Order: sequence, then structure tokens, then C-alpha cells
Amino acid sequence: MSGWLVVAGLGPGADALVTPEVQAALAEATDIVGYIPYVARVAPRPGLRLHASDNRVELDRARHALDMAAAGHRVVVVSSGDPGVFAMASALFEALEGVPAYQTLDIRILPGITAMLAAAARIGAPLGHDFCAINLSDNLKPFAVVEHRLRHAAQGGFAMAFYNPRSASRPHQFARVLEILREECGDDRLIAFARAVSTPEERITTVTLAEARPEMADMRTVVIVGNAATRRVGPWVYTPRSAEAP
Amino acid sequence: MSGWLVVAGLGPGADALVTPEVQAALAEATDIVGYIPYVARVAPRPGLRLHASDNRVELDRARHALDMAAAGHRVVVVSSGDPGVFAMASALFEALEGVPAYQTLDIRILPGITAMLAAAARIGAPLGHDFCAINLSDNLKPFAVVEHRLRHAAQGGFAMAFYNPRSASRPHQFARVLEILREECGDDRLIAFARAVSTPEERITTVTLAEARPEMADMRTVVIVGNAATRRVGPWVYTPRSAEAP
Repeated sequence: MSGWLVVAGLGPGADALVTPEVQAALAEATDIVGYIPYVARVAPRPGLRLHASDNRVELDRARHALDMAAAGHRVVVVSSGDPGVFAMASALFEALEGVPAYQTLDIRILPGITAMLAAAARIGAPLGHDFCAINLSDNLKPFAVVEHRLRHAAQGGFAMAFYNPRSASRPHQFARVLEILREECGDDRLIAFARAVSTPEERITTVTLAEARPEMADMRTVVIVGNAATRRVGPWVYTPRSAEAP
Repeated sequence: MSGWLVVAGLGPGADALVTPEVQAALAEATDIVGYIPYVARVAPRPGLRLHASDNRVELDRARHALDMAAAGHRVVVVSSGDPGVFAMASALFEALEGVPAYQTLDIRILPGITAMLAAAARIGAPLGHDFCAINLSDNLKPFAVVEHRLRHAAQGGFAMAFYNPRSASRPHQFARVLEILREECGDDRLIAFARAVSTPEERITTVTLAEARPEMADMRTVVIVGNAATRRVGPWVYTPRSAEAP
């Protein structure tokens, strides 16, 4: 039996946002590997082994998945959203580095609906012009990098989407992010908090930067900041397709 | 009969990348509206009216869709990729502005797999850290805005994805983009050209900026530029999850 390894994006939560390509890989798999709440989204069936692990062990998880594929298993590593956006695909290639034997394995990355685009769809079209995606977690980068990128994104006139805005272990950092944004973008810029999009707990709140409070975000929230032209129309928020000279 | 309007993302090309949510909307629709090649991707059936129009008439198309929904039709405006990324969602809200009667219509935006994420999955994980998406077309913004954003994206250390890199009407501009990138990022930075991802015409080429040529891109190509840490591992290209101080 020839093994393979798929890194699949499950989308933001709803089954209706899982692509047929990902559904087919899950149906053929012998082993599912991933962070506990993502593995819990895969329906159990006879013969399917579930390997759920905690957060922050991405490299161990990737090596385990590679080992099983090398041994002939059909392995799906599950990510929320899209596996290439602040998720498991990058960790997998990191685990592959320096292990040439594993670089010839049958590996496929299957895209998914990433949280910022699911959130944007609920909000309107806040990412309707040039935009950036920034991971606000400082697990793997110093906060100075976050600040540097926030300022360039703002000065470049990009709309912005933030992943992992706030966690229990770093409650104060997002307050600093909001301060930097107010300095760079002014008080009137629109900011949307999209929590648990496409799940029963979904909650969307759009305010100005002046009204934004750190506690509006948690680890299940994607935050979207408009550019200078982003505005409300009826119940929606959108960013126009056109832009004037800088 | 109560009408509605859905703006749906069909993904980059393959049927296996169309979400069940979008499939369900297409199955319930009475009218499909969109750019000719995207409408051609919807299977005809009795009772389904297809309204295909040419490029650059996005506002007319949006108004037509709103008129039909207001008259009780079930209308799906189809976009390639994700409707919120350089596609029809923003044009729809632009058409809604100043027409309060239409702002109470039943409108939903349904996300799709956007081209840069489908391309990234084929390449490896080139957008595995903070990244920007930039539309290189100057239809709706001066090229000075493009240059301004390119320089901020590069100086901020973002990976970058470019939509609409090159067209027959502006063949020289992408050459200038490559010059700016070489100035900002150096000759050794990796750049990937992903054409027609997920279709039979798919072609992926990764080179350095020194080797990049304008004719490697056309309007069916998404271009991805790594950050300073982006590298090859086996047949893949990925951007590490970690970053050092700027």
C-alpha cells in the first residue's frame, strides 16, 4: 500500500464551507492528525484513526504525520481555514527540511476557506481592495515585527486582516495594536470583529477605531481594518475597488 | 415569490474547489449573472437563465442583478475565486450606494477559494507568514499607488500575491513591477508564477527575481513573491512561520 500525506483546510467551521476535494481526502484517509478541536470536526468511521494533539506542537505533529505516510498510511493533517495561512502547511515543510527521504513522499496541500475571507463575506467586502494578512501572535516572532508591519500596512494604504489577535497569555498586546492603528489611521477608520464565523456562535461587530476595545477580540476572532476609503452602505461595510494617487 | 441576491465565489477553476454552500445557491437560482467565462462554468438546466457580460461592466452587471432580485428573482452573481478579492462583491456594494430601496434586499456573499491560496497550495506554503494581496491592474487606480504599496509591502517584510499582473493593454507595467521588486528585495528573492491553477492548463514556475521575465505572467496568472526567509525544500517552496526582529 502506498502512503500519502494531505494537509487540508477545513474552512472556518460550517460543513457547507468544506470543499469536495477535502471531503474526498477525508473519505480516503486512514489517519487524521491535528489540533484537538479541528480533529473533532472530522466524522469518525470504522478504520479511521484520529490523532488529536494540543496547540504549539506543530513540528511534532508534522513529523508524526510524515512518519505514518512513510509507513504506508493515508494521512490527512487538518487545519482550520486554509492550511497555508498561519496553519500547518508551513510547519510541515519545516519538518521536511533536512530529511531528504521524506521529500519524495506523495504530499498534497488542499486549500480551504480562510477565516478572513469568510469574515469579509459576512461583513460585506472590507477586503475589496489591496490588503494584508498579519498574525498578531508573538509566539514565533517578536512584537517589534508586528509593529513594523502594522505601520507599513497602514502607510501603504492596505486594508488589514489580523489572525490570533488576542489570547489569555498576552492580553495587553492587542491594546497596543489598537493604539498603533489609531496613530496611523485616525479615530474614524472602521474595524470589524468577526468571531467564530459560520458557526452557531458567530458574532460580527463593526465600530470605529475610537470605539474599539481590546476585549472585543479573542482567539476565535478575526479582525479586519478597512483602508481610508472603507465605508458603510446599509448594513454592510465595503472597500471600493478604486484608489486615488498616494 | 421573494427574491434574493447571492454573490458567489466559484473558486479558481476545478469543480472540486466549489463549496457545497455555493453549489446549493446555484441549484436554487433562477438567474446567473457574470463575466462570460465564469457564467460558462455554471451547468445549464431548464428554467435557469444565464446573463453573461463582458469585462469592465461590473457596475452595470451589479445593477442588473439588483433589479432582478428586487423583481423577485433568485439571482447568483458568479465570481472566479472569492467574490471579495478583486471581484464582484465590492462592485455590488458600490451599486447599492445611494439606492436605499435596494439596501433591504436579501443579499448574501458566499466565499470561495481565491486564486492566491489555490496557487500557494500547489507551490507549498509561500504565504505561510504575514502577506499582502495587491491588484496590479491600473484600471481603477494610478500606477503610483501600485508602486507605493509594493515598496511598503517589501519594506514591511511581507510575502506578496499579485492579481491581474499583466494584460495586452499594459504589457510594460509588469516589467516595472519586477524592477521595483529587485530594488527592494534583491536578485535572489523567490517568485512563483501560477497560471490557471486547478485547470488542465495549470503551470507553476518558481524562479529568482534575477531570472523573472515579464512574459512569465499573463491575465490568468497569480504571482507570489516570498519574503526574505522564503526557501525551497525538495520540490516545494515555503515561508517559515517564525520571523526575527526587523
